[in-house]
Amino acid sequence: MNPAQAVMERCDVLATCSEDPKSVIRPFASDSMRRAQQYVKEWMRQAGMAVTRDNVGNLRGRYEGSATGTLLLGSHLDSVRDAGKYDGPLGVMVAIAAVQRLHDASKRLPFAVEVLAFADEEGLRYGSPYLGSRAVAGSFEARDLERADADDVVMADAIRGFGGDPSRIQDDRWSGGDLLGYLEVHIEQGPVLEARGLPVGVVSAIAGQSRMEIVLTGEAGHAGTVPMDRRRDALAAAAELVLAAEAAATTQEGLVATVGKLEVIPGVANVIPGRATFTLDLRHADDAVRSKVGEALLLRTRETAKRRKLAVEVHAISDNAAVRCAPQLTTLLTHAIKDCGQRPIAMTSGAGHDAVVISSLAGIAMLFVRCKGGISHNPAESVAAADVAVAIDVVSQFLELLAKR
Amino acid sequence: MNPAQAVMERCDVLATCSEDPKSVIRPFASDSMRRAQQYVKEWMRQAGMAVTRDNVGNLRGRYEGSATGTLLLGSHLDSVRDAGKYDGPLGVMVAIAAVQRLHDASKRLPFAVEVLAFADEEGLRYGSPYLGSRAVAGSFEARDLERADADDVVMADAIRGFGGDPSRIQDDRWSGGDLLGYLEVHIEQGPVLEARGLPVGVVSAIAGQSRMEIVLTGEAGHAGTVPMDRRRDALAAAAELVLAAEAAATTQEGLVATVGKLEVIPGVANVIPGRATFTLDLRHADDAVRSKVGEALLLRTRETAKRRKLAVEVHAISDNAAVRCAPQLTTLLTHAIKDCGQRPIAMTSGAGHDAVVISSLAGIAMLFVRCKGGISHNPAESVAAADVAVAIDVVSQFLELLAKR
Repeated sequence: MNPAQAVMERCDVLATCSEDPKSVIRPFASDSMRRAQQYVKEWMRQAGMAVTRDNVGNLRGRYEGSATGTLLLGSHLDSVRDAGKYDGPLGVMVAIAAVQRLHDASKRLPFAVEVLAFADEEGLRYGSPYLGSRAVAGSFEARDLERADADDVVMADAIRGFGGDPSRIQDDRWSGGDLLGYLEVHIEQGPVLEARGLPVGVVSAIAGQSRMEIVLTGEAGHAGTVPMDRRRDALAAAAELVLAAEAAATTQEGLVATVGKLEVIPGVANVIPGRATFTLDLRHADDAVRSKVGEALLLRTRETAKRRKLAVEVHAISDNAAVRCAPQLTTLLTHAIKDCGQRPIAMTSGAGHDAVVISSLAGIAMLFVRCKGGISHNPAESVAAADVAVAIDVVSQFLELLAKR
Repeated sequence: MNPAQAVMERCDVLATCSEDPKSVIRPFASDSMRRAQQYVKEWMRQAGMAVTRDNVGNLRGRYEGSATGTLLLGSHLDSVRDAGKYDGPLGVMVAIAAVQRLHDASKRLPFAVEVLAFADEEGLRYGSPYLGSRAVAGSFEARDLERADADDVVMADAIRGFGGDPSRIQDDRWSGGDLLGYLEVHIEQGPVLEARGLPVGVVSAIAGQSRMEIVLTGEAGHAGTVPMDRRRDALAAAAELVLAAEAAATTQEGLVATVGKLEVIPGVANVIPGRATFTLDLRHADDAVRSKVGEALLLRTRETAKRRKLAVEVHAISDNAAVRCAPQLTTLLTHAIKDCGQRPIAMTSGAGHDAVVISSLAGIAMLFVRCKGGISHNPAESVAAADVAVAIDVVSQFLELLAKR
């Protein structure tokens, strides 16, 4: 079986490791994660790696090199609810395939390669993403251990049940000496590569992201009896802002703005909406652009609320700076793509990834793989074996180029 | 105690007849309705009326006249959930007070006055409004008897338990000979009288109403990874239509347009909305105006959906023609208001009322009473005793004028 076909089959096998036999759901520190890790551990061993599991529950497969220094390859094994097969697992499987190729050729690089299979990136079980990479980066927050899941299982107990020691998560921080960088392979989760007809792309930066919740409060009233000029309709104001956000993003290259959640109270056909609560998510590779647009939209929100005599509350949910990929690694990755006969394309990642967290520890690079229709977080997630073959070749060539540097 | 004060106290007493000791909720054929009717029956008797209860559960108090013909006065005794004290009961109490005045003066009019206290107008328990007035008008639909409430009690059983015979509801149809008309007193449920500084107003028409549900289906996608020009955002399209409906209503005198319900799927901050479902409620006293605006908004909906590559479904929920009040009765009511020293104002009712159903049986008239802040269907519903005094005087004078006609 060729390596790409093996990766495809392994992704299929991991998809059977689920809490639900009818769909993919593989949360942090779950039975399904335990079954998935049993497979992954075995595949790492077959590729010549020494395998350990840290306290938070990341699997680490180490393929020693002929000299010092380590290159990290990684992605995550957990999933969202009703997930696809590739978001996360593909990156781990491609990394193992690249190491397998070295092992099959009995080849050692002048640096070790360590494959990190993160225990949590999606944050499904505890609502706190990146548990795995944060442990490795040393940014795991101890207070998260007190979080309870939907069944009231506290995280510390879940970690203990999974075989880790929650009091020693700080020991998971990278302590293996010099790092050459971190490379993550991931499905694009967007339609750009498909639209350009390219199997892979190089991520130049991971977009910064602002997320806020805006609450507009007017006055509920009878849909038949309150004249239009006496209304304080919270939904009409929210509608203006949905369109303002869309317009701002359409006129600013590279910006994406999304109102994904909008709730109306009371939400009854014959009652004028008294309250509208909506989220605004803004992303751009340049933090200054994102701030500028965010401020303009907040100003617009306040103007709209004032004109319509509404109260407005803005709650910041998160504000993450953009992360630039390491230029040296990105350059090598670009060369590797060319060496594999493909046209390189640089792209911004609009989604966050483990690479963002690891960037505090090492320079990062990311290789995106085309996915069908740009669909992710969905059972319809699909990648082509031929594209996976390109990804494995590119990672292998990247390792060669890094060794020659 | 003056009559207005008595009406206020009786509304307080009826508010204690509730399924919930902490708020007003008085559904059709409930224990709380039974208690309320015991009071109302007694008050009708004190006012010299002969009281009966029909099969559907309406109380009818008849004050005989010196000649043939009957004028109906009425409103409803049931309530919405967490209701106020006046929507419905006020009209019944004012009607009884007007009859009490005749009785106290031992006066007979040349026609009988029959006070109808309808058993259901809000439709709270069975989701089918106007059960009481439909029985009287002969438009009760037998298939409604099979409806079940939230506790799976079928309507036919509820009626039986309340003392009626569900198989004989057709007998409730008015059979008492010539009708001179129907007059309903009701709180305005809107802010117009308050804004004009007037205690009462004459309803000239009850607005026609179209209600529809519109479903826009685009494509859900990752808020970070799908570029703006590749989105098929269902919420952004819905936002356009919310504003289009508002704009149409603002530019068309007397029209009200409301999007009261809007639901987004999946409704998550980091996912582009794949589906938006919203209601559109349009009301106007002129059916032609309402149709024209409704058609224009549907055209706009289809254009927006086409431009944004969305699928669109439109489900008509209801389409009720406007009902004009009987000009002769309205003229008398206007004269009665002037005779009471008040300035008459003609207004459209944006809400439906029992009068709409009774209009198939007799000419109708409605007298609106100012309510604080235009608030209804809410514990904050409030009317002033002084305004109630005006309403009682106007109804009494209306009876005098009708007698002289």
